[in-house]
Amino acid sequence: MKKVNYRDIQGSAPEGTKGVDFKQLIAKNVDAPQFYMRLFDIVPDGHTPRHSHEWEHEIFVVEGSGKVVLQDREEKLIKGDAVFVEPGELHQFVNDGEELFRLICVIPKPSSD
Amino acid sequence: MKKVNYRDIQGSAPEGTKGVDFKQLIAKNVDAPQFYMRLFDIVPDGHTPRHSHEWEHEIFVVEGSGKVVLQDREEKLIKGDAVFVEPGELHQFVNDGEELFRLICVIPKPSSD
Repeated sequence: MKKVNYRDIQGSAPEGTKGVDFKQLIAKNVDAPQFYMRLFDIVPDGHTPRHSHEWEHEIFVVEGSGKVVLQDREEKLIKGDAVFVEPGELHQFVNDGEELFRLICVIPKPSSD
Repeated sequence: MKKVNYRDIQGSAPEGTKGVDFKQLIAKNVDAPQFYMRLFDIVPDGHTPRHSHEWEHEIFVVEGSGKVVLQDREEKLIKGDAVFVEPGELHQFVNDGEELFRLICVIPKPSSD
């Protein structure tokens, strides 16, 4: 068993983000074999890139609210929502609220790791 | 993109649990291809089974506090902790606090699904 608290992890701001603090929680640091758990803290007016990729996302909204912007629509997200983004689907997470928007995001282990 | 809120999902009490409300968030319901996201709500004095299995767990503590009981030790868990349980490792999650202990738990897609 390995345990980390997000407060003890140094964050980063991935390319294409605005107002995002990104932390790898369960990844190469613990030799996770199949999927990685990450945390996104998005401040008001912040967002992740609007992009697509061949892997899925499994998201859980831990704090705050915001929206997910897709190819042809957007949907409101609130605390307690779980979101499945399909492989290849265009998506962006946006904090259009006034509080921190905190997401857990799980992806398959990257082939490069 | 598919979205569910845990409040809209019917929970269950898996075998060997006490005081647990278990919900599948992202699983067969959305044809998740590789890994499943579930939620455990554990009331004070409640617990999951003390068991082991060949797949890993990736856990995030969303609310409350508790502990994880392992083969030879136990460790306190607080909100914001991420926990990696290795394949084959004996483990049990226990709410020894006075508030709801809420966990997100991600596992590989079961071969039976």
